[in-house]
Amino acid sequence: MNAPDKLTQLLALTREPFPASRKIHVPGQLHPDIRVPMREVTLTNGEVVTLYDTSGPYTDPQARIDIRRGLPALRSAWIEARGDVERYEGRARQALDDGARHEARDAQRLEQLRREAAGLQRQPLRARSGRNVTQMHYARRGIVTPEMEFVAIRENQKREWMRQYLGDAEREARLRGNPMGAAIPEVITPEFVRDEVARGRAIIPANINHPELEPMAIGRNFLVKINANIGNSAVTSSIEEEVEKLVWAIRWGADTVMDLSTGKNIHTTRDWIIRNSPVPIGTVPIYQALEKVGGVAEDLTWEIFRDTLVEQAEQGVDYFTIHAGVRLPFIPLTARRRTGIVSRGGSILAKWCIAHHKENFLYTHFEEICEIMKAYDVAFSLGDGLRPGSAADANDEAQFAELRTLGELTQVAWKHDVQVMIEGPGHVPMHMVQANMAEQLKHCHEAPFYTLGPLVIDIAPGYDHIASAIGAAMIGWFGTAMLCYVTPKEHLGLPDRDDVKQGIIAYKIAAHAADVAKGHPGARARDDALSAARFEFRWHDQFNLSLDPDTARDFHDETLPKESSKVAHFCSMCGPKFCSMKITQEVREYAARQGVSEEAALEQGLQAKSEEFKRAGGEIYIPIEPQG
Amino acid sequence: MNAPDKLTQLLALTREPFPASRKIHVPGQLHPDIRVPMREVTLTNGEVVTLYDTSGPYTDPQARIDIRRGLPALRSAWIEARGDVERYEGRARQALDDGARHEARDAQRLEQLRREAAGLQRQPLRARSGRNVTQMHYARRGIVTPEMEFVAIRENQKREWMRQYLGDAEREARLRGNPMGAAIPEVITPEFVRDEVARGRAIIPANINHPELEPMAIGRNFLVKINANIGNSAVTSSIEEEVEKLVWAIRWGADTVMDLSTGKNIHTTRDWIIRNSPVPIGTVPIYQALEKVGGVAEDLTWEIFRDTLVEQAEQGVDYFTIHAGVRLPFIPLTARRRTGIVSRGGSILAKWCIAHHKENFLYTHFEEICEIMKAYDVAFSLGDGLRPGSAADANDEAQFAELRTLGELTQVAWKHDVQVMIEGPGHVPMHMVQANMAEQLKHCHEAPFYTLGPLVIDIAPGYDHIASAIGAAMIGWFGTAMLCYVTPKEHLGLPDRDDVKQGIIAYKIAAHAADVAKGHPGARARDDALSAARFEFRWHDQFNLSLDPDTARDFHDETLPKESSKVAHFCSMCGPKFCSMKITQEVREYAARQGVSEEAALEQGLQAKSEEFKRAGGEIYIPIEPQG
Repeated sequence: MNAPDKLTQLLALTREPFPASRKIHVPGQLHPDIRVPMREVTLTNGEVVTLYDTSGPYTDPQARIDIRRGLPALRSAWIEARGDVERYEGRARQALDDGARHEARDAQRLEQLRREAAGLQRQPLRARSGRNVTQMHYARRGIVTPEMEFVAIRENQKREWMRQYLGDAEREARLRGNPMGAAIPEVITPEFVRDEVARGRAIIPANINHPELEPMAIGRNFLVKINANIGNSAVTSSIEEEVEKLVWAIRWGADTVMDLSTGKNIHTTRDWIIRNSPVPIGTVPIYQALEKVGGVAEDLTWEIFRDTLVEQAEQGVDYFTIHAGVRLPFIPLTARRRTGIVSRGGSILAKWCIAHHKENFLYTHFEEICEIMKAYDVAFSLGDGLRPGSAADANDEAQFAELRTLGELTQVAWKHDVQVMIEGPGHVPMHMVQANMAEQLKHCHEAPFYTLGPLVIDIAPGYDHIASAIGAAMIGWFGTAMLCYVTPKEHLGLPDRDDVKQGIIAYKIAAHAADVAKGHPGARARDDALSAARFEFRWHDQFNLSLDPDTARDFHDETLPKESSKVAHFCSMCGPKFCSMKITQEVREYAARQGVSEEAALEQGLQAKSEEFKRAGGEIYIPIEPQG
Repeated sequence: MNAPDKLTQLLALTREPFPASRKIHVPGQLHPDIRVPMREVTLTNGEVVTLYDTSGPYTDPQARIDIRRGLPALRSAWIEARGDVERYEGRARQALDDGARHEARDAQRLEQLRREAAGLQRQPLRARSGRNVTQMHYARRGIVTPEMEFVAIRENQKREWMRQYLGDAEREARLRGNPMGAAIPEVITPEFVRDEVARGRAIIPANINHPELEPMAIGRNFLVKINANIGNSAVTSSIEEEVEKLVWAIRWGADTVMDLSTGKNIHTTRDWIIRNSPVPIGTVPIYQALEKVGGVAEDLTWEIFRDTLVEQAEQGVDYFTIHAGVRLPFIPLTARRRTGIVSRGGSILAKWCIAHHKENFLYTHFEEICEIMKAYDVAFSLGDGLRPGSAADANDEAQFAELRTLGELTQVAWKHDVQVMIEGPGHVPMHMVQANMAEQLKHCHEAPFYTLGPLVIDIAPGYDHIASAIGAAMIGWFGTAMLCYVTPKEHLGLPDRDDVKQGIIAYKIAAHAADVAKGHPGARARDDALSAARFEFRWHDQFNLSLDPDTARDFHDETLPKESSKVAHFCSMCGPKFCSMKITQEVREYAARQGVSEEAALEQGLQAKSEEFKRAGGEIYIPIEPQG
């Protein structure tokens, strides 16, 4: 790419690695050519901590990235080696694909951008006639794919480093998690991944037309995942701007990204995003289909919808939200609700159903949809179009009638070996959260649950990332496999760059809290490593092991900016003399020096200390600035 | 007060009322002279919503406030009418009371400020010899005090307005809370308050030397409360600056405030805060005692500590954190912890115990402390000096050994009719939170529990208000009566003004989520009122019913600033055509117009709508700007 492009890119794309971190790649054993990326953090005491890494090559200074060509197609060889796909002409692009009405200026700009990004065009693949290319299909035939081994290695995060933190038997017995019915093995093997995918308890969203993907799993017996939503700009300014939204989201930990673009340029923007995405991309195809009929729900037809599915499947979308459970007879159940139907897709289909007095065409054509899904390995995210929009409507008949239908459809999809996850609420008070998980497990046969929050109260607009992180942490513990984030702007407007980050961090907290509570063997070691750093006043390590090293460091430096204070045995909250950790720490060090039992040393140590303090008297006293 | 003062004050104190809100006062029946403040929000549809109001007279434009004289002493008549108190000389002020070492400049400045605030000096009251002036003592003798009736009226928030929201039988049956053992009556009566205080299940922190107090209750069968911490500035700049910290905290919902001041000017600053505080003020007396011995824990004595208790009791502190459970034999139990002793008070006492090879003097002198508490009605907040500082140390023997001791001390205090609450952790993973509540209920005889968070993970420095709000919401649901806030700066540094607000809002979310989950009859109506406003596109009502109207409005206005959009039937998230609430809403309105059954109308209505849309075709289509 030429110099000005490079400049634009450097300005637009966030490429810095995380502090004290480097990208490593762990090779496969069954499949030696796979390279599983992880983030390795080197601590100031020499320890090395390995973390799950969603950020893709963007945080790797070694990686040469040209967003006009897209990321390396690392899965192509795996896909072709299976010998069950064919390259073909593909669906011809139509004017409507990028939205109905363009002013000339935009159209020209779009044309220019398309030419710039011509290198992103790929001829699509599909299953050869009579073949099924889903990960579930392979799993059920006993095949451990490279994708499955990739996931197994990725989920383990090199357990070795954790042993020193998880080694104390008394502590582990006391802290033993409550899996709430999950069955997470000590170490994730490729065979375990295969088995979970085969029985439908986990999915690996991985469209054969998205070879740039770094495979990941969504399932109750794996780390809890989070999703972030992005969308196109009203007037596309540059490819960098659209791709940066993705790069920013995965940098902070989004495991999957949903492209909820509507209006203009959606087809072209989607090319840019998918070709540059190391994470699965999900969409809600009904949004684009609605654009094609000028926004008039009643004018939607199965043919237009079907064509849109093929269009997006050829581009490489990894999962589709399909609101096939919004059945005609359920719609009247929402009439007496406090907040009716709040799902965009749900309301579009409700309007269609009633306008035509017909059953939802996604329900009546569900098997045909399965045929498309299995030809590209697109996973279902069965949408909850009737989810509650307020605590008052939580767990009502409309919601659960739809959930039971999603359970029926799950079995239809599984008949076709198509991967499925189930979408869930929404707005649910704390005491009603567990019933959602119980109903889902009961009716959806352990297909992964994917919830939006839920928000546990309705009075926190401006802070709904917090109100929903509470419900998300709980339902994640109870068994939800992926949590769709909520930003501080929920209910109020469009999230900006910082809102997206705030939403993602809140959800990383919820997901990690769930992993710890479930007793995931790979979860708590990071907390222990950070707590050890905190206790030993290794400030840089404390920052670098946190979910957001930049913010942790900036907050600390507001009051103690000097580099010297990064090793100081106190912070500005309590000051040096009052620091309780310092006091305990002095005892430990003394014990170590004396080489006597800690309990005994504890007394001797503090005796000595007390003498020392008495000698020093008031002179070593330093005034403290308390909080407030 | 003179003009320049007034100017300073206007600049420094936040006095604006909340939007569309006015302060009302509800009179007592048993005690006609009591006036219980509430916030009345008038909605754009004419409805009136009454909310619990912690902000005191500061949000009342009618109130004339002179912080150099303090708030009106509304309880004085009640206290004197009981005929069991006497005014007396009081302890003579000592140089050390304001900290050990002053540079001359500060000393002069302090003297000047003292003179300015001379009007805040009050001659102290104490119980007449042989009398006991605690609310618990009165309650046990069957006396319903004005404080108790005040609390009863306050907790009810005028239930009348809630009926329309909580009237639907099906909905209430479906949403019925899970009280987890709490027994919250439909309406709180003064007699109920008396009974709860008598059995020690609730406390009303109300020092007889804090007559400015608007009484409130902390107990499992009342609304969950939150505490915010403030502290003095290193160099006191003005009285306004110190009082504003309090005003800011109670404006956003702090039910009590702890003054954790250390270092200089603490006695004088405390005068300013208490005289101007409508909420209970708590302190940790060991901090000031330590100042008096130059910060050398080993030099602490019972005499110095006792003198400090009397000093603060005479000033009007409503509750004292007393770390009497940090017993000598428990200290070695912390030696093998990941993070040792993290409580400041706990580490100070641990150091004293071991340096002197003696049992904690707060434990050995506990009955003498009770004698002081009951002479002023200061409540105990029995401190958890051995609380865990990391998930790794949660629920260990050191923590629970101390908790059992706090249970024993509770019974000693109750023998003296002294009010007690119990402090709790800290850092606890989600699956171990409930055990903390169960152990506390079992060993502390239902004395109110007061927890710090707990944080459910350790890797979120910079976001610990969120990591802890998750644990706080859960433990609040399980029965914790008051939640001590955590700010985003926890573990990193001193919170600033915005950090304090962020911490308080996160905790209002946690407390309200707990009230809703417990099924508090006064909790959910506000959510329903806001959801109704949201559904009917009454944007101003949605903002004004939220926990932070300013932020909700500002976020909305970032994308739709025009006043016209405050009645628009959409927001920028989905745009006008995609708004699902609008679609459902159109159906409702049609049904109402036709006066037919909603289900039937739903169909007819959408039929008509569909015709309308078909006529309008693409022309009413408006492009949508999705999020991202």
